[in-house]
Parts: sequence; structure tokens; C-alpha cells
Amino acid sequence: MKKQVINFSEKFEKFSEKWAPKIIARLNDYHFKLVRVEGHFTWHVHEDTDEAFIVLEGELGIDLEDGNIILKQGELFIVPKGVKHKPFAKKECKVLLIEPIGVINTGNVIGDQTAPSDIWI
Amino acid sequence: MKKQVINFSEKFEKFSEKWAPKIIARLNDYHFKLVRVEGHFTWHVHEDTDEAFIVLEGELGIDLEDGNIILKQGELFIVPKGVKHKPFAKKECKVLLIEPIGVINTGNVIGDQTAPSDIWI
Repeated sequence: MKKQVINFSEKFEKFSEKWAPKIIARLNDYHFKLVRVEGHFTWHVHEDTDEAFIVLEGELGIDLEDGNIILKQGELFIVPKGVKHKPFAKKECKVLLIEPIGVINTGNVIGDQTAPSDIWI
Repeated sequence: MKKQVINFSEKFEKFSEKWAPKIIARLNDYHFKLVRVEGHFTWHVHEDTDEAFIVLEGELGIDLEDGNIILKQGELFIVPKGVKHKPFAKKECKVLLIEPIGVINTGNVIGDQTAPSDIWI
């Protein structure tokens, strides 16, 4: 079998663009994706799935309709399916996303920040 | 909605036993589990699912039938379904597991190291 250990830092060195998740691994029907975030993202919702955010470096905010949360390095948050959210980060932040294969980063809102959901690094 | 940010370090402070994964979050039909490992685990296989290991602290080895891999902090490895494996760690190591709800830690081998698969912390 292929014995590929995935190092998050090495993978992050391979791209610099913000808000464009890159796939690093597959677990059954799920993808693990790395994303660099900075500034404000689009309000959106994933109607069919929960979405996991793990902060690997920096600080990530997620606006929710009833307030916001702040995630630091070593913290996890699950946005439940159907919950409108808007990620943001004052400074660049590195995040691991875990979600079903094919999930679009902007969910139900297609726009300038919509990125391909099938790019591996 | 419940806005629960999960801090890995805080969760690890809540238990000290080894090889007994504790659930910290649910993503659709998957669980995120924290586990402390040290010494040698049982050779086993999960016939129906891949299994994700992320090392949060320390160094984790995984023996596979054709060799072994070593995972350091900030590294991820997916054991594909059907692949026999035996985790080990010379010193205590802290690991995040991601796998479908109900997966038994020792897979197909029930024994002394088999732990409940439904304990939340």
C-alpha cells in the first residue's frame, strides 16, 4: 500500500492563495482540505452537511446568525448543517477542513470566492 | 445553536488512560476522538472503513504489514480500510482520530485493549 504521511506545514508551502481549499487526503467519502484564510468570507450555508474547522495556526473567527466564535490553534468547531456562517480572520490563519467530497466552499452562494472543490496538493 | 469550541488540550486534561479513545465531536456520521497512546497496541483491521490519525503531540508509529510509518506532530495518516495495522509509541503521544460512529478501537480483535466506542468527554 501507499504509505503517505501528510505533513501540514509542507503542504501549506505549496500554495499561497487565500480561501481556496486544497485537498490533502481522503477518508472514505470525506476530504481533508487545507485552506489559508485572511479577511472576510461570504455568508453561506451547507444545507446537506456539517463542516469541521480545525485551526492549525493563527486565529479564525466564524460569524453565526446569533453571534460569533473565535477559534485558536488547537481548537475545533463543527458548523452544523443548515447553519449560516461567515468565516473571517484579521491575520492570515491556517485551517484544516473536513467535509464530504464535493462540498463547495461558498455552499449555496456562488460568487467571486467560490473555488474548485477538487484540487489536490 | 450550541456554540461549542473544542480545545484539544483542555479535553486531554480530562483523562489519563491510554488507548481508550474519547469522543469530542460529531460530524455527520463521524466521530472525532482524542486518544493518549504509549507502548504497543494490538494488530487489527477495520474491514469497513478508513481511519484518520492526526498527531497533536509526540510521535506515533504505525506498523503495517509491509513496514511502518512514523507520524510527528502536525502530521496525518489515513489507514485504508482492510489494512492491518498496529499503532505504537515509545513515549506518550496525543492523537486525534476521525472515523465513523461506532468504530471499535481494536477493530476485528476483541481483547484487553478493546475500549468502549461511545464515551464522550
